[in-house]
Amino acid sequence: MERIIATYLIETPHDVEKAATVLAGEQSSGTFVAVPGETDELKTRFAARVEEIELLGDVSEPSMPGDDLGFSTYHRAKVKVSWSLENFGFNIPALVSTVQGNLYELRQFTGLKLDDLELPVSFSEHFEGPVFGMRGTKDLAGVGPERPMIGTIIKPSVGLTPEYTADLVKKLVEAGIDFIKDDELMTSTANSTFEVRLNKIMKVINAHADKTGKKVMYAFNITGDLDTMKANYEKVVKAGGTCAMVSINSVGWAGVKEVCSWGKLSIHGHRNGWGMINRHPLLGINFPAYNKLWRMAGVDQMHVNGIQNKFWESDDSVVRSIKSCHTPFLNNEAVLPVVSSGQWGEQAFETWRRTKTTDLLYMAGGGIMAHPSGPAGGVKALHQAWQAAVDGLTLEQAEKEFKEFGESVAKFG
Amino acid sequence: MERIIATYLIETPHDVEKAATVLAGEQSSGTFVAVPGETDELKTRFAARVEEIELLGDVSEPSMPGDDLGFSTYHRAKVKVSWSLENFGFNIPALVSTVQGNLYELRQFTGLKLDDLELPVSFSEHFEGPVFGMRGTKDLAGVGPERPMIGTIIKPSVGLTPEYTADLVKKLVEAGIDFIKDDELMTSTANSTFEVRLNKIMKVINAHADKTGKKVMYAFNITGDLDTMKANYEKVVKAGGTCAMVSINSVGWAGVKEVCSWGKLSIHGHRNGWGMINRHPLLGINFPAYNKLWRMAGVDQMHVNGIQNKFWESDDSVVRSIKSCHTPFLNNEAVLPVVSSGQWGEQAFETWRRTKTTDLLYMAGGGIMAHPSGPAGGVKALHQAWQAAVDGLTLEQAEKEFKEFGESVAKFG
Repeated sequence: MERIIATYLIETPHDVEKAATVLAGEQSSGTFVAVPGETDELKTRFAARVEEIELLGDVSEPSMPGDDLGFSTYHRAKVKVSWSLENFGFNIPALVSTVQGNLYELRQFTGLKLDDLELPVSFSEHFEGPVFGMRGTKDLAGVGPERPMIGTIIKPSVGLTPEYTADLVKKLVEAGIDFIKDDELMTSTANSTFEVRLNKIMKVINAHADKTGKKVMYAFNITGDLDTMKANYEKVVKAGGTCAMVSINSVGWAGVKEVCSWGKLSIHGHRNGWGMINRHPLLGINFPAYNKLWRMAGVDQMHVNGIQNKFWESDDSVVRSIKSCHTPFLNNEAVLPVVSSGQWGEQAFETWRRTKTTDLLYMAGGGIMAHPSGPAGGVKALHQAWQAAVDGLTLEQAEKEFKEFGESVAKFG
Repeated sequence: MERIIATYLIETPHDVEKAATVLAGEQSSGTFVAVPGETDELKTRFAARVEEIELLGDVSEPSMPGDDLGFSTYHRAKVKVSWSLENFGFNIPALVSTVQGNLYELRQFTGLKLDDLELPVSFSEHFEGPVFGMRGTKDLAGVGPERPMIGTIIKPSVGLTPEYTADLVKKLVEAGIDFIKDDELMTSTANSTFEVRLNKIMKVINAHADKTGKKVMYAFNITGDLDTMKANYEKVVKAGGTCAMVSINSVGWAGVKEVCSWGKLSIHGHRNGWGMINRHPLLGINFPAYNKLWRMAGVDQMHVNGIQNKFWESDDSVVRSIKSCHTPFLNNEAVLPVVSSGQWGEQAFETWRRTKTTDLLYMAGGGIMAHPSGPAGGVKALHQAWQAAVDGLTLEQAEKEFKEFGESVAKFG
């Protein structure tokens, strides 16, 4: 029978092998005393199994504050545990409750992080994965493999009127941008209701498409309960839009899967709240596991933060995340990595150096909006930065060669 | 205009007031540079506002490992921040993205935990809250205010056949239990599909109800994607069931709200995964805020762990959670606190002493199933323990007075 394999980073003051056995036991038997009915046959068929233990060294302090149990040594390890597919079938929320669930609560661990997840190939028959994915989304936006999609976020996040927003969108589409999005804080506000904003923006985008053949992708933030998302999704489709954005952690897996199943728009997955479940090095979930769960829901575009971002996340984690989006997974389309946070073009060089891919949605907020030559200059500067990076120029060379990128360096560098 | 108020516990090496201002700014303007369009009028209307700062003392090490920024002092504080309702209206996922969202990612904080949430009274007009809630659920189970509902979990979690499970249910209902639930690991397994298990169990429960007038509540675990949950929910209704269980973190807010809106079953909210977002003292979310979000979704029963539980959570946190479920909130019905984890009757005394409430669902797994006189003895022992606790007896007195409880003490004490 096929098995699901979960890889964890753990920390425990106890014997690592025994702690791993507790982990496996909690997630397949789960009470503090042996009970009748727990036969050997049942255990063989349904018990979780510790597949592999790799010791990662010891530390003298537990990584979870407040959990100092008075031991002098805490062992770290990478542990693989497997479950039979028979335990839950093709039910992702049930799988999540199994591979995460109560594990974080076990006193035996002073650290536990789900790092990665391997699903058997039979999942392919039950989950389509992203309808558009990386390639389909770039196709929709009319951007080939030779360069990233260049995008921006409407700022300030909230407060602008639909008219002001549409004017900004007009400037941006005329400047040659590929993608624009609502901020994750912006759904429907008192002075900019979803429908009014949508229609004003799509009027600009459709007019530009009629004139030039290029339909700029706009991610309208439909985040809400299911009724709200359904209604707003249909409005986007009707207005000729190509994309909707969802705050995936706030909506949750079942809601996001439902949205993705509607199949007419590329779904922009915003992972705000990520820090809550990832920032601690030994608590929560790492991107490879997280990303696979959302690929199973059908998300087409996934936020990965950016190199030298304004947040706490390390470049190593960002690079791992980008690669994770591109790594083949079952029969899924690759997911389009959404690179953002404090980006203005400088980081194109390091991003290219470390990932050697242009299959990205590369976004700058202030980096475009606050460019000395206005948004048009900001968009141009990002195109220049990426062209220079791919052509092997240094930042210094690019700064001299390209006027708008040079202005970016002068202002943001 | 009405405002939403969020209370945070924070830790920062910077000036607390400045850090709080960054927090408010990130969640209402949100880029690293001033941009055009951000007028004073717009700011006044839509900017988040720091309402209150209470200093909680300094520490010399950051509570987030790996984030030692080289400072010698880190300040802790409780901070209240407010947003105008105009920013998102009555949209809970958008509100979550605002009050949590990217905040956990800010380098300015080495700790950030959402502690509580205050919503204006107008939310009452847009959210019904739990259809059954605490009182409605106890009514459904035929249990009055004078004692807690006594419940148990089918163990082992996975692997039992429907026949074996139904036999166990028969023993339990005959022993006078009020409530039984699937384990959160149990949805539909190879040898116990949802429908077969449901029908075998409901046959037992319905027969018992026909004979005695008491319909035992069984929480069938319908956790899954929306189609699965809808199909299984309808099956439970059709079979005459009164309750469905959902792993709320795995399903997510929008999916759970949808399930609650169907309105025919009391929804048992299992919060597995809670440790991931709560275990760190300064990362994630505390129960008062968490619980309110799920009350808005309409969850009727909410897990709160138990006194002297087998997990890491402190008794103080459990007591705060129980009180939180009972605290009036908007026009919501109170939520029934589900007390569980390592419970066998001993803890009834301390639970009563600290909460003085019997409006609980008090659950024991092994404490019932592995009782020396079998499940019937286990149920009896729990009734005895609660009766003794409410009557003011000590554990020692109860141990002598009640045979079955005495046996519990001998085995588990």
